[in-house]
Amino acid sequence: MIKPEDTRIEELGSPKHVSPLELSTVYGDSIGNFTPLEARIRYDIDLGTGAAEDCEEVFFEKAGAREKIFYNPADVSAGIVTCGGLCPGLNNVIRSLVNQLAAYGVKRILGIRDGYKGLNPAMNRPPIELTRDMVDHIHFAGGTMLGSSRGPQDAAVIVDFLVENGIDMIFCIGGDGTQRGCHNIAAECSRRGLPIAAVGIPKTIDNDIFCIARSFGYATALEEVRRVLDCAHTEAKCAVNGIGVVKVMGRESGHIAAGATVASQEVNFALIPEVPFKMEGSGGVLELLRKRMEKRNHAVVIVAEGAGQDLMEGHSDGVDSSGNKRLKDIGVFVTDSIKDFFGREEIEVNVKYFDPSYIIRSVPANCTDALLCDSLARNAVHAAMAGKTDCLVGMLHDQYIHVPLPLATRERKLIDPEDDLWVRVHESTGQPLKFQV
Amino acid sequence: MIKPEDTRIEELGSPKHVSPLELSTVYGDSIGNFTPLEARIRYDIDLGTGAAEDCEEVFFEKAGAREKIFYNPADVSAGIVTCGGLCPGLNNVIRSLVNQLAAYGVKRILGIRDGYKGLNPAMNRPPIELTRDMVDHIHFAGGTMLGSSRGPQDAAVIVDFLVENGIDMIFCIGGDGTQRGCHNIAAECSRRGLPIAAVGIPKTIDNDIFCIARSFGYATALEEVRRVLDCAHTEAKCAVNGIGVVKVMGRESGHIAAGATVASQEVNFALIPEVPFKMEGSGGVLELLRKRMEKRNHAVVIVAEGAGQDLMEGHSDGVDSSGNKRLKDIGVFVTDSIKDFFGREEIEVNVKYFDPSYIIRSVPANCTDALLCDSLARNAVHAAMAGKTDCLVGMLHDQYIHVPLPLATRERKLIDPEDDLWVRVHESTGQPLKFQV
Amino acid sequence: MIKPEDTRIEELGSPKHVSPLELSTVYGDSIGNFTPLEARIRYDIDLGTGAAEDCEEVFFEKAGAREKIFYNPADVSAGIVTCGGLCPGLNNVIRSLVNQLAAYGVKRILGIRDGYKGLNPAMNRPPIELTRDMVDHIHFAGGTMLGSSRGPQDAAVIVDFLVENGIDMIFCIGGDGTQRGCHNIAAECSRRGLPIAAVGIPKTIDNDIFCIARSFGYATALEEVRRVLDCAHTEAKCAVNGIGVVKVMGRESGHIAAGATVASQEVNFALIPEVPFKMEGSGGVLELLRKRMEKRNHAVVIVAEGAGQDLMEGHSDGVDSSGNKRLKDIGVFVTDSIKDFFGREEIEVNVKYFDPSYIIRSVPANCTDALLCDSLARNAVHAAMAGKTDCLVGMLHDQYIHVPLPLATRERKLIDPEDDLWVRVHESTGQPLKFQV
Amino acid sequence: MIKPEDTRIEELGSPKHVSPLELSTVYGDSIGNFTPLEARIRYDIDLGTGAAEDCEEVFFEKAGAREKIFYNPADVSAGIVTCGGLCPGLNNVIRSLVNQLAAYGVKRILGIRDGYKGLNPAMNRPPIELTRDMVDHIHFAGGTMLGSSRGPQDAAVIVDFLVENGIDMIFCIGGDGTQRGCHNIAAECSRRGLPIAAVGIPKTIDNDIFCIARSFGYATALEEVRRVLDCAHTEAKCAVNGIGVVKVMGRESGHIAAGATVASQEVNFALIPEVPFKMEGSGGVLELLRKRMEKRNHAVVIVAEGAGQDLMEGHSDGVDSSGNKRLKDIGVFVTDSIKDFFGREEIEVNVKYFDPSYIIRSVPANCTDALLCDSLARNAVHAAMAGKTDCLVGMLHDQYIHVPLPLATRERKLIDPEDDLWVRVHESTGQPLKFQV
Repeated sequence: MIKPEDTRIEELGSPKHVSPLELSTVYGDSIGNFTPLEARIRYDIDLGTGAAEDCEEVFFEKAGAREKIFYNPADVSAGIVTCGGLCPGLNNVIRSLVNQLAAYGVKRILGIRDGYKGLNPAMNRPPIELTRDMVDHIHFAGGTMLGSSRGPQDAAVIVDFLVENGIDMIFCIGGDGTQRGCHNIAAECSRRGLPIAAVGIPKTIDNDIFCIARSFGYATALEEVRRVLDCAHTEAKCAVNGIGVVKVMGRESGHIAAGATVASQEVNFALIPEVPFKMEGSGGVLELLRKRMEKRNHAVVIVAEGAGQDLMEGHSDGVDSSGNKRLKDIGVFVTDSIKDFFGREEIEVNVKYFDPSYIIRSVPANCTDALLCDSLARNAVHAAMAGKTDCLVGMLHDQYIHVPLPLATRERKLIDPEDDLWVRVHESTGQPLKFQV
Repeated sequence: MIKPEDTRIEELGSPKHVSPLELSTVYGDSIGNFTPLEARIRYDIDLGTGAAEDCEEVFFEKAGAREKIFYNPADVSAGIVTCGGLCPGLNNVIRSLVNQLAAYGVKRILGIRDGYKGLNPAMNRPPIELTRDMVDHIHFAGGTMLGSSRGPQDAAVIVDFLVENGIDMIFCIGGDGTQRGCHNIAAECSRRGLPIAAVGIPKTIDNDIFCIARSFGYATALEEVRRVLDCAHTEAKCAVNGIGVVKVMGRESGHIAAGATVASQEVNFALIPEVPFKMEGSGGVLELLRKRMEKRNHAVVIVAEGAGQDLMEGHSDGVDSSGNKRLKDIGVFVTDSIKDFFGREEIEVNVKYFDPSYIIRSVPANCTDALLCDSLARNAVHAAMAGKTDCLVGMLHDQYIHVPLPLATRERKLIDPEDDLWVRVHESTGQPLKFQV
Repeated sequence: MIKPEDTRIEELGSPKHVSPLELSTVYGDSIGNFTPLEARIRYDIDLGTGAAEDCEEVFFEKAGAREKIFYNPADVSAGIVTCGGLCPGLNNVIRSLVNQLAAYGVKRILGIRDGYKGLNPAMNRPPIELTRDMVDHIHFAGGTMLGSSRGPQDAAVIVDFLVENGIDMIFCIGGDGTQRGCHNIAAECSRRGLPIAAVGIPKTIDNDIFCIARSFGYATALEEVRRVLDCAHTEAKCAVNGIGVVKVMGRESGHIAAGATVASQEVNFALIPEVPFKMEGSGGVLELLRKRMEKRNHAVVIVAEGAGQDLMEGHSDGVDSSGNKRLKDIGVFVTDSIKDFFGREEIEVNVKYFDPSYIIRSVPANCTDALLCDSLARNAVHAAMAGKTDCLVGMLHDQYIHVPLPLATRERKLIDPEDDLWVRVHESTGQPLKFQV
Repeated sequence: MIKPEDTRIEELGSPKHVSPLELSTVYGDSIGNFTPLEARIRYDIDLGTGAAEDCEEVFFEKAGAREKIFYNPADVSAGIVTCGGLCPGLNNVIRSLVNQLAAYGVKRILGIRDGYKGLNPAMNRPPIELTRDMVDHIHFAGGTMLGSSRGPQDAAVIVDFLVENGIDMIFCIGGDGTQRGCHNIAAECSRRGLPIAAVGIPKTIDNDIFCIARSFGYATALEEVRRVLDCAHTEAKCAVNGIGVVKVMGRESGHIAAGATVASQEVNFALIPEVPFKMEGSGGVLELLRKRMEKRNHAVVIVAEGAGQDLMEGHSDGVDSSGNKRLKDIGVFVTDSIKDFFGREEIEVNVKYFDPSYIIRSVPANCTDALLCDSLARNAVHAAMAGKTDCLVGMLHDQYIHVPLPLATRERKLIDPEDDLWVRVHESTGQPLKFQV
């Protein structure tokens, strides 16, 4: 539950400078407008759906260029850092950040190398100075021109670095862990009374940022997963009792698996972390799969990497350098379970396993994501220029908003099995709305 | 301005049958739910933006499966018709309509051939009976398996046809003209007291349906246009003073031109119907283009087909068979104007003209559109089953709603030059927020 | 070494029927011609290269439509079977076989299901009768509309099946094992004095058919592998000391690995079965990789699945159902060796492993392969109609030829490290022409 | 007819320097080899085909690295120029030229800007110095990083420029006109006794270079044309009596039209410059088209831009700046003829016209072309280093050869309607082998 006070955005101080952008303050003159300070976007937009509705109305600050800004652009040095795994659109975000900063008249833009490592002098990775020319064509390539890495660095060390390098605003592009790190930077600056803006741009191919409708990279990832599902479907159909099993990203949420299932319409079973299932026994996936095979002789199964962790023996072994829980390999488990089950049943099947992971995340952004990246980046610059800090920019109901980092990182956006997306999955797969467990 | 009463949906009668769908009516049981009758989606979701806000609050009916339905599915015959120009996703919509009708238990589904022509017996195009197997793979192909054509047919003739063929519900997939036709069918049925549902699914690659955030095919079209823009940019850069001019769809609205401009980031001038401009003289496009050429030696211009109609001599010659105003060719006009201007200025330029039209609209849907098509189609079936008529289904704020056809066809959704999208165009092109005229 | 007598083609008898095809026998009338019986293609086409040249001149029969044919097309029943793993272009071949048979006037064309299994009545897979309409759109999809399976069936059983089903000619599309099976069918028919033609169309994504320049599917596979290499390169460049390792098909020959390396120009090490290498020690791959990493901080390694089998401990465990030797997993071995080595050296590296296999082979054919498939299929029909048997059709020096099955399956076409392709690999990777072992 | 003496290659003098490349001269040591001086590739490789065979045997010099070279690489300055229209693979050729020159140890590589214009000081386009780093990623983009232009420059002026800039070898990438220009440079150098090598790399998307099997860009162009044909087919099938007309490149030869026809298998009429046809009257295309429409209700027509020039009234108006004859617009003519014909016949048809031109040629090279570009470029460097001049490198029978420029530009490689490709077109379209005229 979000409370109205959860959405309040930190500010560095009162904005005194006149924005150099040539926007209008008058509606009706056919010239785009500055966003008023008081503009808000409503969080709950439906009525009478039967879901709990006794909460107070919640609004988020609308993102956009402000007429008065906190910084004098001519004096500003900005830093940009990309962290964590690759995601389609990183270079688009970098490019639009640089172009929008330049549009404000910012002269010094530093690209931090290799994630938060580049903000720790001990790691010996001096930043590179970015120009519009340098970023002109980067959006045609996947990956990030700045490099990336996993794992946090000490906020005190980072803030020392920002001060020593005269950086007034830092844009942190990354997932959950990165945004926590961005919050720590903002908090440390606040503690020291430093007028440094720390603004996040959420990057998660898993599409699981709280309060945000869609994160960049997700739409592109679906295209790539659909390609793989087409291959899995072809392999399954052309083999004797063929079964294609595809593992996709999705540590805690199954958005990629669910979205690709509905987009491709070729999946028969979609298994995600939010929806419990069992393999064996009555009502288990294997029994359902046998029925499918009897009827149609081929099947496609998609499984998110975080699904069914409770089904596998052994302890999960700790966390990786980003602080993510190490997962047991559900893709291999499902594949082996299927082979084992049909072996016991003495039914010939041909199981083909697909683990495309990196192939999905290292491609350039498609148009849907490119549009999102451009708006996120430009609004992040507007936010920082206005003196907003400890927040990220995101899209909600096709609008752009500011979300306080403590709220955005408080929990993850999961698939609610009662929501439309999961009903769509049920409709296109034919699997039950809820598995027996 | 939309008034609350504008959003009221026509109903054929009181729904007495229990839906055969196995959805839940309880929140919290992890099973997807029927949509309550009273569920609504709020139209205005922002506050304090400075735009006129003195209007009454407007809500749209939320689309979705109802617990009680008007028809007994076992008795239902349904018709599906696709009209007008091709658009990516038509086959996806047909496929999901068939599958959702089958999920209700509908046995007889008729595919109407060649648009509204197939609803006129004089045209001698008997419908084909559709099965799930027949539509299983159609979404891999562009176009429509049913064929399409332009132009209306007499509503009385159509309703006679529906009655003679025992059709209880008709799904009309098409643009503005098609939806007016769908309204005429609903009105004629109402006049005769016939319990026939006429439900529209809006199809416009131009993305200009009123009240609706995004129509299917648009996201795919952007990908194709971006490919062409890449070619135009390559041609322009590799020639001596190269200028690429690309004409795209957009009769009354510039959504494709504007969206592709921001997605590609390679366009220098975007010209759309909503934003007046002049070619010649001070502040004209040609003068701005000369400045661009002096600085960078190459340029890309995108122009929507409906832009700048006031600049060309002669009368527009009537309307086409869909009732659309015939347009003068702005692509050729802009190209010739550029050649002429630089000729007069004695500056060598190499102008390459691209007119990709059909190439953009006949491809299969990308994932973003595939997801939209599936939800639109399934919600259209839910609407018809519940006895809704004279309405279309659409997406608004990432939710699905019913829109009365009279409202949906009252006006077109145009680009407001004061909205974010046009500001993004300005930022990525460098062209003025508003041209001098 | 090929001897002149190795290229002699078996014939069922003297061709007495006049071909119904409307080709010409006159050169210069601007109408395509029947191929004369005596037309031949020269095998060795270079002189003075220094390679052994003391052999006799070798010629292959030129494929093509003959003026006189062995069968009366009206009486012919033809069978088509696809065996082994998927390969881009299978449906193209099926489609062109059906269309060319129909062009001759053949009325009964049987599609054999699931590979050679479908020729064994015990497997209970009755053939399906194919028409031109049924195959009209199959080339847009990957896979094979007939299904496929691995493994041989008894030739006597197959020939019984052919006789019982009245099949006069059988087209066997498959790899090495399939072509041996095809030869066994031809031999068994010959033994029994049956006028049944058995003609092969070689299918190997590995491109390793002896005497043949390029087999279908190879050109398409390269496109898919290049996509994966781009991802591997992006992942490697964006990580701290990133190394991408990509395993590709190539059991005994490295054509895919070598071709994709040169086409992408992004690979630093290409490891193939034909070229020995060691991982450890001076001159080993790991030492060379360390040098690369010191200089450029990222690297891409491609490895064919059959490479370096001698480096891994343990015995290879038998053969699969196609009779192929089971391979130890060189991809995992190389990846682990790299991690282990840099761990010992205390150098941080980020190794990303890619195993795309099925993704590469289940896509539709690109144009280069589509052209090849069409010519192979039509020439196979011409060969069978002329009464040729126990042979396959293939492309050599951009011409189409008949190759006796005993010759074609005698050995595999391997990459000669002294040939141009391997020199190109050396040039684009910078790896030595020959590894130290 | 080619005579043996036509294939003799000009040389600048006797090669005295030892090549720095680490190739072998021994066969059997598993190390790639230098190409012996006397290595030759046979031109005619078939026997007994019935075509005229009374000519003398013709051999071409085999391309490749020579053990002894003419230049001392350390002293060499090389120039690279790209001319004429864009073609997929230009950047691949530039990149491999630079890399191979660097492999020889050449220190100074000049990129000439904007075609032959950049070799005329009056045009004021100083060359840019190319490094390996500068070209590292250019092959991911279409076009040419050097720019291009049409039209010749005076050979004397060019040679003055080469001398003044100390350029020892010039690589001319371009079509027919460019290769004539390259010959003029070689001839002028020879006249002046200058030891400057002029080596061509043939670039023609039309695939019509004499003596050469396939030129780069052609395979990629087919993919793009097939995409357009798919769209044309979809548009035709989905409209009432739909007819798609696609115009493609092919001024004097129909290789693109013919190749794309066979690759797509969706074309019903293919019209090319080499095969006369008439539109009107008995046996004319329009009558054949009517029959097709009666049977199948839709059709696709592909027409090469140089086809049917005799059918259109009026004089062709001169030549363009490349010296190519200006063509009358056969695409518009065919489209209008079809509309007119069916109008007269009072049959409703919907004709959609596609003119994709630039879209086809400005994309990056596919793998098939990338492999070709790499080999052409590296062999061109080997040729120049060995002191060869007045020649181009090309592929014949999958081998690389030197062709004297006077021979290569003597005539164009046209489609012989008696060859296999045109028979394939007939088979896949159903059109006659020869049109009535």
